[in-house]
Amino acid sequence: MYRAMTAMAFAGESGFTGPIQLSGDPKGATVLILGAGLAGMCAAYELRKAGYKVQILEYNDRPGGRNWSLYGGDTYTEMGGFTQKVEFDKGLYLNPGPWRLPYHHRAILHYCKVLGVALEPFIQVNAAALLHSTKAFDGKPKAFREVQGDFNGYVAELLAKSTQQGRLDEAVTQEDKELLLAAMREWGALDKNYQYKKGALTSERRGWQSDPGGGLSPAPTPSEPMAMSDLLKSGLWSAIAAGMIYEFQDTIFQPKGGMGMIGKAFGRELDGVIQYGAKVTEIRQDDRGVTATWIDSKTGGAPRQARGDWCICTIPASILSQIPINVGGPMKAAIDAIYYDASIKVGLQFKRRFWEQDEAIYGGISYTDQPNSLIGYPSTDFFSSGKGVLLGAYNFGPSAFEYAAMPPAERVAKTVEYGANIHPQYREEFETGVSVAWHRVPWTMGCAGHWTEELRAEHYDNLCAVDGRILLAGEHASRLPAWQEGAILSSLDAIRRLHQRVMAS
Amino acid sequence: MYRAMTAMAFAGESGFTGPIQLSGDPKGATVLILGAGLAGMCAAYELRKAGYKVQILEYNDRPGGRNWSLYGGDTYTEMGGFTQKVEFDKGLYLNPGPWRLPYHHRAILHYCKVLGVALEPFIQVNAAALLHSTKAFDGKPKAFREVQGDFNGYVAELLAKSTQQGRLDEAVTQEDKELLLAAMREWGALDKNYQYKKGALTSERRGWQSDPGGGLSPAPTPSEPMAMSDLLKSGLWSAIAAGMIYEFQDTIFQPKGGMGMIGKAFGRELDGVIQYGAKVTEIRQDDRGVTATWIDSKTGGAPRQARGDWCICTIPASILSQIPINVGGPMKAAIDAIYYDASIKVGLQFKRRFWEQDEAIYGGISYTDQPNSLIGYPSTDFFSSGKGVLLGAYNFGPSAFEYAAMPPAERVAKTVEYGANIHPQYREEFETGVSVAWHRVPWTMGCAGHWTEELRAEHYDNLCAVDGRILLAGEHASRLPAWQEGAILSSLDAIRRLHQRVMAS
Repeated sequence: MYRAMTAMAFAGESGFTGPIQLSGDPKGATVLILGAGLAGMCAAYELRKAGYKVQILEYNDRPGGRNWSLYGGDTYTEMGGFTQKVEFDKGLYLNPGPWRLPYHHRAILHYCKVLGVALEPFIQVNAAALLHSTKAFDGKPKAFREVQGDFNGYVAELLAKSTQQGRLDEAVTQEDKELLLAAMREWGALDKNYQYKKGALTSERRGWQSDPGGGLSPAPTPSEPMAMSDLLKSGLWSAIAAGMIYEFQDTIFQPKGGMGMIGKAFGRELDGVIQYGAKVTEIRQDDRGVTATWIDSKTGGAPRQARGDWCICTIPASILSQIPINVGGPMKAAIDAIYYDASIKVGLQFKRRFWEQDEAIYGGISYTDQPNSLIGYPSTDFFSSGKGVLLGAYNFGPSAFEYAAMPPAERVAKTVEYGANIHPQYREEFETGVSVAWHRVPWTMGCAGHWTEELRAEHYDNLCAVDGRILLAGEHASRLPAWQEGAILSSLDAIRRLHQRVMAS
Repeated sequence: MYRAMTAMAFAGESGFTGPIQLSGDPKGATVLILGAGLAGMCAAYELRKAGYKVQILEYNDRPGGRNWSLYGGDTYTEMGGFTQKVEFDKGLYLNPGPWRLPYHHRAILHYCKVLGVALEPFIQVNAAALLHSTKAFDGKPKAFREVQGDFNGYVAELLAKSTQQGRLDEAVTQEDKELLLAAMREWGALDKNYQYKKGALTSERRGWQSDPGGGLSPAPTPSEPMAMSDLLKSGLWSAIAAGMIYEFQDTIFQPKGGMGMIGKAFGRELDGVIQYGAKVTEIRQDDRGVTATWIDSKTGGAPRQARGDWCICTIPASILSQIPINVGGPMKAAIDAIYYDASIKVGLQFKRRFWEQDEAIYGGISYTDQPNSLIGYPSTDFFSSGKGVLLGAYNFGPSAFEYAAMPPAERVAKTVEYGANIHPQYREEFETGVSVAWHRVPWTMGCAGHWTEELRAEHYDNLCAVDGRILLAGEHASRLPAWQEGAILSSLDAIRRLHQRVMAS
């Protein structure tokens, strides 16, 4: 099966060209891996298969790193000492980190398949989801379909007008003008006069005031488009582009039961290989190998050591920059240069799935200009009569800093307050919440590596180069930062180059 | 739960305002229902619950009517005598009729919930699915994301140009012009000069030539947009609007295991109520009730009779127009006026899910200008290593007539030929196929009632009116023709009016 895939065109587009082949006998070479996130575990999994002896040191008492789901009964302590006990009902969860697997992320999808992690579709764009601005339409949210329908309609109408008035004559040939007009009419739901007008045609895009029914029930009522000027001023159109980004296009997946299922599956596979609760305090290489000093991440205690002929270090640069490590100047400069983004997520449990039952919103994302930024509806257990957990907030930048400065309970309370401006049902139905502010996560101090073009030009190759017996891997050592695919591809590239060295020596 | 739903805003938009309430004692009134499709079974289910005695006559030996899935082992005989034995592997199926449940079809979704029919997301728009024209790009298909990215980009570029050149001054205020330019830039992925150009920005919409990877693997290569003129001439942009239609917007669902699960569930619920294999040959009402004469639909034999105080007739108008029935002129004229659309579907089983494994197409629809019209990829069992069934053809109008004129085996062969122009893997991987040409289905002779505005103005109210003791129901007696929601809403409206009559008498 996978041989067929490797041979075909698509796989060539992706950085993943099929299962990695590390041929040749490494003759008992040992590899010390730092970090049991996806990059570290992928390296361990493949290197062990190729004949290496592998060992992983991991700060947490679980595998996965940022591949992580929080379930009822879990506790989580952030920097500053706040401990949250998750009180979600059985089966409900929050993915504090990654939550999506785009269809073109072939490497992570490959490992899901290999590890038996069941996947289900993740709904990103939902026509019934809401777009909300406190400064537009009296703070009343609009359905995505209304905004998209009207936006397309007005764009089409304006462009058709320009075309008909001969104002695109330099840019478009006469023949193409006819086609452009036809395209605008069809795409924008314009009438025969190339106008975007209230009626059946436009209601079949933006939704009806009252839907068509059966028998002698009342005839359907078309809905009223927004005024173009109100729409432009609202800024709500900004959400339309979001769903067209390569990573957010259909079809997207999520593991059934939580993103953390991938980390757990890798962890099971690597039973006995991972030393949990190990906080690395120093990394030192010599001509023959690499030694990591570590202490118990909870209790401290006497330093212990682990050693390998080689080391794959997947510790986030935000943490690694604080650990003594004898690598060359260029790699050290690269490690120190990467800034880690601020991000927060808040999960809220509600007594019932009111977004489905009352508003027919099944999965997808609503956007708001409030600090919570968005509401993510669960893409699983649709139509269930039970409780549900929403992603109540997910933001970056200033709002994330603002959130991180609050104690967890206040973050949750604020998120409920913001959400109630979009779904009044929040007030009645809210039960319990949990929040993760990534700048307060002790083992990453940020959500993901942030590269600018300038930083990448100066430091990226140095970060990824082999330094003596040390290689770095992780999402920060990829061109897909913040994506699990980046972590896996970075890991595969690192072990490929490591293996070449070993085979050459 | 449902009380809550009924009370909320959304339910008001739909023709379905929550579970039907038929209060008052019908005192043993009997209702004869013709047809065990969704309309007929919904009527029986609700009337029985309200205290009526109900009985259904059904032509087929199964419940569901057009709510139907074909599985391995099934046989199907069409008009003209061709019998097909379905040879799909276990678990694989074709839905010859409806295959989608839009999120706003609240009535059918309600019955799925009530009947315990499990639902899963149906992927309609897939960025990786293909758009194919034999007359464009040398017959080489383009990915949906490429067509959408380029179409939006060029539309944005043209409109930005018009705006900048002051050519929209009558239509757009100065303040809105700035917003419009910002919107075009963001939505269309334009560069700072408002141009749609090859690069990272546009590749993040249309996909990359080679994707970003990890470590020191080659830097990503941007993809080359199509020329605007080629894109316009290709007509491929037509597919973009399709996914924005109200019924085709996310989130859409399908029953796990096939659409026919709904019919089966209703059938189980109505065990003992349905007389299968009954071909109605005459419907006659008098002052006291309605008598239907029927014969065995397979063997013929002696006519039998069934009688009720009232009759809900859900037999498609295409068939009903051929059955003697003593209704008034207006209803008879309405029955005779409805034209039934031609439509065909072809299901093809392949040895492996090459569309997923080779091309990362998970669900969704590819479109082509060939007579097969589209290829629908299964929205279930994603990533499975087993076989898969594609919807190889689904069309209406002239192509459907052309298809219907061929024997089933030839339809399948043609469909494989067309499909191989899009997916060359067809040639190697095809195993077996089945086709349903709706004009050859003995119990409908067409796929659904087709209304024009003129026909509806003249006949619709007459079709739906109570005629003595007879009411008609079904998708044809709704403003949602061809949709199961229309059948259910029509049925609910009919029984509501029937119940009013009974209570009033």
